[in-house]
Amino acid sequence: MEASELTGHISRRFDKDIEDLRNNVLAMGGLVESQLSQAIAAIVSGDSELGLQVAKDDYKVNNLEVTIDEECGRILATRAPAASDLRLIVAIIKTITDLERIGDEAEKIGFLASKLAAMDRPADSYRELKTLGNHVAHMVRDAMNAFARLDIEEAWETVQEDERVDEEYEAIQRQCITFMMEDPRSIKRVMNVTWCARSLERIGDHAKNICEYVIYMVQGRDVRHTLGSEATGSETSE
Amino acid sequence: MEASELTGHISRRFDKDIEDLRNNVLAMGGLVESQLSQAIAAIVSGDSELGLQVAKDDYKVNNLEVTIDEECGRILATRAPAASDLRLIVAIIKTITDLERIGDEAEKIGFLASKLAAMDRPADSYRELKTLGNHVAHMVRDAMNAFARLDIEEAWETVQEDERVDEEYEAIQRQCITFMMEDPRSIKRVMNVTWCARSLERIGDHAKNICEYVIYMVQGRDVRHTLGSEATGSETSE
Repeated sequence: MEASELTGHISRRFDKDIEDLRNNVLAMGGLVESQLSQAIAAIVSGDSELGLQVAKDDYKVNNLEVTIDEECGRILATRAPAASDLRLIVAIIKTITDLERIGDEAEKIGFLASKLAAMDRPADSYRELKTLGNHVAHMVRDAMNAFARLDIEEAWETVQEDERVDEEYEAIQRQCITFMMEDPRSIKRVMNVTWCARSLERIGDHAKNICEYVIYMVQGRDVRHTLGSEATGSETSE
Repeated sequence: MEASELTGHISRRFDKDIEDLRNNVLAMGGLVESQLSQAIAAIVSGDSELGLQVAKDDYKVNNLEVTIDEECGRILATRAPAASDLRLIVAIIKTITDLERIGDEAEKIGFLASKLAAMDRPADSYRELKTLGNHVAHMVRDAMNAFARLDIEEAWETVQEDERVDEEYEAIQRQCITFMMEDPRSIKRVMNVTWCARSLERIGDHAKNICEYVIYMVQGRDVRHTLGSEATGSETSE
């Protein structure tokens, strides 16, 4: 085998490694999106069983994270990638941490759905949680699309979307406080609603983080902490 | 210059890079510990100005994160480290993400301290928050010590400590619900206490994550998701 042939062979194997890695991250993203949408459905439909199933399935997300992490370590150790490939792998190591934490929040929402299903149900079937939930689910989907297509424009738009999610979240929290003050017997139930809103709002933060890694990956520059939306001075924003 | 001399030279420069990197992570840990202890002090003493100062200083933590992240990227790209050095750098990339998020929680606690300072103060000066705060501050310190000395035993002990933090956190949340039901006029104030407790509990989670990276770094095995404490079935645990 000629040296150039060998190099070509190694580089094709490397390309395949990277392609497999990207596909695994997208699969993990798909699983997390499905967990999230089922958790929201469980809240809205008052389906305790579905909520508990989501919580139970979180181990699948965790397993994918460990697998992808090991794969990143293996590629770093054996291929010593440079420049853009290296940035891709560092970005993936960070991205899967955020995906795993979105999974953790979906797990919590699943448990909360199961608790809320056993309590009085408001006439609007938690419409605000549904709206906020769909909003952050959309952010997660857009973040994964930006990752898949290395689409900086979509990444930036999604980063900016997080401010609107924060506003919706603040509105829900104010409403919850009003409900509790008007009807103290509702406090236990409404606290579950506030935890649920909190988890959804955090999912928006994680989606935003992923978009920032996409921008870093493509542009090679770190845009975190430069967007002025980190310190809003609000007690309820994360 | 002989080849062996050159190799020695490169490896000494590499050692120095790694040493600088470790020192920067420890400095970042020290800064985060200081932010956290000041935030707790601001709550306990009702010091609005101190709380706002902590929030304002969060940018220092963010700047250190970006600097260390870039340094890790540079070392990965130029030195292509193998085995334990590679694990160290991957662990550092993850550790500083958690340190930065501890900083974010301290920032939030700072804002909350400023709000609470302007409200009625309970006779016990938020004793439970102080206890929980000191507990998680201890976990952060132990996590950074485990990192500094690559001390697996301390890392394991700190991981286990997180369960006790979760119990304290649950107790505070139950107490908050009782307070609000007994005196609905206290709801706005008590909600700030619950957000504060939530932030402290999350800091415990981040300290636990750092300890798990230390174990990975030393043993080369991933212990996340194997400790059985991830899915407690509780609505309030993170």
